[in-house]
Amino acid sequence: MGRSSALAQDAMERCDILGAISEEPDRLTRPFASGAMRRAHERVGEWMREAGMTVRRDNVGNLRGRYEGASAGIATLLLGSHLDSVRDAGKYDGPLGVVVAIAAVQRLHDAKTRLPFAVEVVAFADEEGLRFSSTYLGSRALAGTFDPADLERADQGGITVADAIREFGGDPSRIGEDAWRAGKLLGYCEVHIEQGPVLEARGLPVGVVSGIAGQARYLIRFVGMAGHAGTVPMHSRRDALGAAAELVLAIEAEAGSHDGVVATVGQLTVQPGAVNVIPGEVSLSLDIRHPDDMVRVERTRHILDRSKEIAARRRVEVSVELLGENASVPSAPRLVSLLSRAIEAQGTPAIQLASGAGHDVVPMSALTDVGMLFIRCKGGLSHNPAESVAAEDVAVAIDVLSRFLDLLAEA
Amino acid sequence: MGRSSALAQDAMERCDILGAISEEPDRLTRPFASGAMRRAHERVGEWMREAGMTVRRDNVGNLRGRYEGASAGIATLLLGSHLDSVRDAGKYDGPLGVVVAIAAVQRLHDAKTRLPFAVEVVAFADEEGLRFSSTYLGSRALAGTFDPADLERADQGGITVADAIREFGGDPSRIGEDAWRAGKLLGYCEVHIEQGPVLEARGLPVGVVSGIAGQARYLIRFVGMAGHAGTVPMHSRRDALGAAAELVLAIEAEAGSHDGVVATVGQLTVQPGAVNVIPGEVSLSLDIRHPDDMVRVERTRHILDRSKEIAARRRVEVSVELLGENASVPSAPRLVSLLSRAIEAQGTPAIQLASGAGHDVVPMSALTDVGMLFIRCKGGLSHNPAESVAAEDVAVAIDVLSRFLDLLAEA
Repeated sequence: MGRSSALAQDAMERCDILGAISEEPDRLTRPFASGAMRRAHERVGEWMREAGMTVRRDNVGNLRGRYEGASAGIATLLLGSHLDSVRDAGKYDGPLGVVVAIAAVQRLHDAKTRLPFAVEVVAFADEEGLRFSSTYLGSRALAGTFDPADLERADQGGITVADAIREFGGDPSRIGEDAWRAGKLLGYCEVHIEQGPVLEARGLPVGVVSGIAGQARYLIRFVGMAGHAGTVPMHSRRDALGAAAELVLAIEAEAGSHDGVVATVGQLTVQPGAVNVIPGEVSLSLDIRHPDDMVRVERTRHILDRSKEIAARRRVEVSVELLGENASVPSAPRLVSLLSRAIEAQGTPAIQLASGAGHDVVPMSALTDVGMLFIRCKGGLSHNPAESVAAEDVAVAIDVLSRFLDLLAEA
Repeated sequence: MGRSSALAQDAMERCDILGAISEEPDRLTRPFASGAMRRAHERVGEWMREAGMTVRRDNVGNLRGRYEGASAGIATLLLGSHLDSVRDAGKYDGPLGVVVAIAAVQRLHDAKTRLPFAVEVVAFADEEGLRFSSTYLGSRALAGTFDPADLERADQGGITVADAIREFGGDPSRIGEDAWRAGKLLGYCEVHIEQGPVLEARGLPVGVVSGIAGQARYLIRFVGMAGHAGTVPMHSRRDALGAAAELVLAIEAEAGSHDGVVATVGQLTVQPGAVNVIPGEVSLSLDIRHPDDMVRVERTRHILDRSKEIAARRRVEVSVELLGENASVPSAPRLVSLLSRAIEAQGTPAIQLASGAGHDVVPMSALTDVGMLFIRCKGGLSHNPAESVAAEDVAVAIDVLSRFLDLLAEA
């Protein structure tokens, strides 16, 4: 077994170990600043130290391992991913990126190699936002964009973010000090499972992320007229659900006919919601994403035009509320190029693919150049205990990341 | 103002009076065996006595006023409707049929007329089933089909039907005695608001009900695959909501293209129900009705075939559960004929229309011939405080019912 296979085996075992560190007995649920996160930090901290890193936890609760470069005062490259999870999670979404980064540093340490830059591996504290319905508490602290208003968010038990941070050992009043101030940065590079089926379909172990798709979320509400299911003839009805059903299919067709657009109706509620009452009101969500914001905006306009056309034809009212919008985040061309060369150096074609999901690179892009490497996962599954990754693919990812460090050192 | 106009004015005022007798301060909600029902009985009992009737309350809680015929031992005609309501009800659904029946008897009493049959006006105790999710507790007691198991049903406060009946002054162990045993019956005839738009569209004050549509209720469940809204491409999805949306439109189209079929999807729930998760499971209800049971069964078969076709094409699973089925209840031809002649005697065309809603005639049809007269209502609205009926139409209904009694006496 070659060194990268051994490192990959370690990484897989480490994902198993972390996968058993949960707040719930029979499934993996590891929220921000929880007891499970504290236990995960103990293990990850050990692995960082074994790889020659100095380890500290910042105020917000990121675990940060630093492998110094060939000299003092030089630039730093950030690597990492997150350690928090969704409820009933898989083992790889987040932790795999942390253990692969540690493996790449381990290889440097084993070879007693110092690079012309320092490497800092960050295990981010909160990417999924499970506990506080937050987004990116950890990476926003590091990027210097942490919003102090988030300290007042409360979990279901009424504990605030500030309380949770104090309980975890941080000082919420000093989160500003978590922001990067340790000199020049070369970028932030994250390894993550794809969470989609593209690499599997292409038969490739890894791929370079061209960028994070922009996304917008809307709430669309149709108001018709409730009525008795037995007495109102079909032609007299103003059924809000009929209008909503047409729009669901129109959204599906619009996304399906434009390459790279994904659009999802994940919520739909019917009022009054009785078996024998014609729906008077239906609210539905629309989540739409595309790597090119112009394409997304144009497709959204078509969908919202369709909603108006459907409403007018069916004599119902329609209203649309924008719930949130994030512009796309392109990967830095320099990092895309180096990651592609690192993949090709393994004798593997380097494809680029967009990420439909958000990642810590989104807030980190405000601080420095960002890049991502996706690892193939089985069936495109994520946020699911059936998440699965092959050790061989992890070995490739470790080799690619090591080669990327070499290329960056030569650049 | 003629006598029927005066009686109609009284009837309208009585609906106003009853409309203010509620368990809730700002809206009309009058459940079975409630304090509001007790107060309603006091007023309705007075009106029955004023019309020359002897009044009693039976064990289940129906208020029954009897106007004797020309001699003892002759047959009885039953008239009536219900006094209970839905939550936030209109004033006319139920009470109007009771006060119109009392008005017709009042006219006999004023004229000191005795018919060759007795007339019993029944104010039924529970047609809407609001308090106990029951159906027809009152008319089933009278028809002799009361199910003693219903005595164990509990309301939201944990009070059972048996407790409620005792509290209201009845003896639940003697409900069997409420069943009709007082000799030969000529039939049961009910006046009710249409709850639909047909009479309004035809410009007619009243119409004869040809029968109660049969109905069936189904729960249809699509199971696809939940997934990340950002990472699963459109062509890889097995979105349960897409399948459900297609079926909603197929149901609408199937009913819309077959005369008299009404089909409604009143409930639809999406799992997991998050904005950023592709729906993995959707359950929806189907309520389908038609006066001809064969037509309903045939259309239902087409709809369920469509659900299978949609599921197969979209690679999702579908399952169907029958929640309940009621055969249609035709009106007795003799009563339809007499009601039609009574309408024509007012110089008004007599149309027949099916009732899509259930009524106390459904259980009463097990006891005796049934017939119904519908009164036009504004916009087809019911189960809504905006329920509205014109006094002129109520006058026509009183005249028709009086004429019907005359014709039945001559028959």
